[in-house]
Amino acid sequence: MPYVNIKITREGGPDGTGPSADDKSRLIAGVTDLLHTVLDKNPATTFVVIEEVELENWGVGGLTVEDYRARQ
Amino acid sequence: MPYVNIKITREGGPDGTGPSADDKSRLIAGVTDLLHTVLDKNPATTFVVIEEVELENWGVGGLTVEDYRARQ
Amino acid sequence: MPYVNIKITREGGPDGTGPSADDKSRLIAGVTDLLHTVLDKNPATTFVVIEEVELENWGVGGLTVEDYRARQ
Amino acid sequence: MPYVNIKITREGGPDGTGPSADDKSRLIAGVTDLLHTVLDKNPATTFVVIEEVELENWGVGGLTVEDYRARQ
Amino acid sequence: MPYVNIKITREGGPDGTGPSADDKSRLIAGVTDLLHTVLDKNPATTFVVIEEVELENWGVGGLTVEDYRARQ
Amino acid sequence: MPYVNIKITREGGPDGTGPSADDKSRLIAGVTDLLHTVLDKNPATTFVVIEEVELENWGVGGLTVEDYRARQ
Repeated sequence: MPYVNIKITREGGPDGTGPSADDKSRLIAGVTDLLHTVLDKNPATTFVVIEEVELENWGVGGLTVEDYRARQ
Repeated sequence: MPYVNIKITREGGPDGTGPSADDKSRLIAGVTDLLHTVLDKNPATTFVVIEEVELENWGVGGLTVEDYRARQ
Repeated sequence: MPYVNIKITREGGPDGTGPSADDKSRLIAGVTDLLHTVLDKNPATTFVVIEEVELENWGVGGLTVEDYRARQ
Repeated sequence: MPYVNIKITREGGPDGTGPSADDKSRLIAGVTDLLHTVLDKNPATTFVVIEEVELENWGVGGLTVEDYRARQ
Repeated sequence: MPYVNIKITREGGPDGTGPSADDKSRLIAGVTDLLHTVLDKNPATTFVVIEEVELENWGVGGLTVEDYRARQ
Repeated sequence: MPYVNIKITREGGPDGTGPSADDKSRLIAGVTDLLHTVLDKNPATTFVVIEEVELENWGVGGLTVEDYRARQ
């Protein structure tokens, strides 16, 4: 009975505010299937929670994502 | 000094957008009391954080919650 | 389908290395029941994960738990 | 730059104490590839953290996993 | 390659709805620098995710933050 | 009342099995002080939890940390 938490930046998608519902469905289906295939985990008791995080709340390299990308 | 994180789908409640403030108060009081009763944890240093998750961001059985319920 | 994560310090219990299996059962039963009572969540799809954390890995007041208690 | 946290019960695998290193590699590769395929996320900045949880620390249906399975 | 998750209440800041983007930048820079200084972790692979939590979703002392403060 | 979760790989330190207790104290003091300085958060109600993760349980670039480093 796995629990998977996926955190991503809130961006992209059909209107620039994050992945579409269809993309989220594909993520949920894909990670559930992966756990079934690799570890024989039962999909019926696999939870997946996707969390979308504002760009200014995500840091990498000591910078917010926006500043990080501006310097790449 | 426990830390408890409760993730629930954002639904129900007085206006359909999630539990009422009163329900959240009851959850916080209840889980804090439980940790005090079972493990003698000090309520003064017990943190509870409730996170509400959009239905399309929660997956079970390889499906989003909405699709999962539609098939039940 | 709630997901609850309970983090506690690894201490106490029958041999000083953390809560007994029976105490953990009581925590799991109690929090699942609370979510059913307050929010009508289905126990069958309520997950509870307990994590035990070494005292030197937990900080409060800018100190590890051990140092914090020594100064109380 | 996604962050994925996978929590599973510590069981199974070559010696009954959890998935093999090879299975973990497959999980890491699989979920990283999924995020690349579905959301075009850069694998170089995708983190995956697997956490293995003792059976007595995981609850479902108001019971520890062991009690839950015994009643199925 | 550390991953740091900072949860704070959503309050304060320039318009009372949480820390400014500049404050978040300072948090990200500060914690990344701390991990570099103390543990020699590479900033390039240090992730920091800040999560802001509504006051009614955060409990301490068995009360929501608002009720807790009202009683202090 | 912030809650900070720091996940790092379990390595290095005095005996190669992770940071020393003193390093953990410095992390706890440093991040608590940072939150006090930047956001005026009260150290008395700031929690820091450090989690150490086995190298084979941490993935980046679609590889476990060990494989990732071997290819750098």
